[in-house]
Amino acid sequence: MTHKFKVRTSGKAEMADITREVHEVVRENGLESGVCHVFVPHTTCGLAINENADPDVKRDIIANLDKTISADFPYRHAEGNSPAHIKAVLVGPSLTVFVEEGALQLGTWQGLYLCEYDGPRVREVWVKLVKG
Amino acid sequence: MTHKFKVRTSGKAEMADITREVHEVVRENGLESGVCHVFVPHTTCGLAINENADPDVKRDIIANLDKTISADFPYRHAEGNSPAHIKAVLVGPSLTVFVEEGALQLGTWQGLYLCEYDGPRVREVWVKLVKG
Amino acid sequence: MTHKFKVRTSGKAEMADITREVHEVVRENGLESGVCHVFVPHTTCGLAINENADPDVKRDIIANLDKTISADFPYRHAEGNSPAHIKAVLVGPSLTVFVEEGALQLGTWQGLYLCEYDGPRVREVWVKLVKG
Repeated sequence: MTHKFKVRTSGKAEMADITREVHEVVRENGLESGVCHVFVPHTTCGLAINENADPDVKRDIIANLDKTISADFPYRHAEGNSPAHIKAVLVGPSLTVFVEEGALQLGTWQGLYLCEYDGPRVREVWVKLVKG
Repeated sequence: MTHKFKVRTSGKAEMADITREVHEVVRENGLESGVCHVFVPHTTCGLAINENADPDVKRDIIANLDKTISADFPYRHAEGNSPAHIKAVLVGPSLTVFVEEGALQLGTWQGLYLCEYDGPRVREVWVKLVKG
Repeated sequence: MTHKFKVRTSGKAEMADITREVHEVVRENGLESGVCHVFVPHTTCGLAINENADPDVKRDIIANLDKTISADFPYRHAEGNSPAHIKAVLVGPSLTVFVEEGALQLGTWQGLYLCEYDGPRVREVWVKLVKG
């Protein structure tokens, strides 16, 4: 079974925290020990794990990727969102996190983020739990 | 059990569509619900999910990564393919996709791609299905 | 059950080989066929698979990422390690490798690496085995 929830992003680029929502899927489904796979069915956003404390980290990640994968390039794709496609490929569409004693196992500073690069949009997040 | 198939890439860099081949592995093995892991046993190619409609997206991804991870750098590795190794690390060697009702679950615009950065070569793709 | 081991990195940036340690977890736990998930509970290091032969490949990956995700940028995060956070997002915190006949399945040239970007530190690596 795939569990699904929606995320409404609010800017062109954003790291939207989905840690609580994924935690809830794990809790509600009573998985004691296993793996939690998270996936986005999109091509201009991705999933990442990074710092959940200082919001400047999110801002720096977005700002530097904007410079690194510059909009100023002879792209051919007519929709104008090629940088978003490239960032999505680099960041990746999936994450795998462990579950023990009924809870998602993350490091102290880790949060789960949907990385929006072509917003604002309503995005879907898919979650699948595997025992193990 | 690991299922294997080969992909013959035709250029130095290429995003080779492997969606159909992976779909077939899922179908032939009768997995109803679970997870499909895909892996490449190589160090100069990777796996990505991205747009399956406009081929200009693939072209833009390849062209921009060529600029971002430039060949014009004081690399030491004597084989001359260091940019391919770096791109492979960034894109990653594995993908995890969900399976429901016997079918691979992808977003409308998503396809699975072997990202060749040091071709042309014959590459192997490994697939493993886990119930869940 | 999650298996854990520590890695002591020795430089600011380093690709620390963890192939042997992960192999051992697989062997000691007697998994015949399945999937080995590896995860780091950190936000300034990542996990990658790349060449295990010429050490110049590791050196080139580190050197080029230092240029691509430059320290010379108007970062706001006061700790000064924003490039490490960005590299960790791009490389990713997890890997999925297959297990058959009791052994980790890797390509001839592949090794598993903890990619340190903000060392030296003592890092944790988490491993979880799923039958399949």
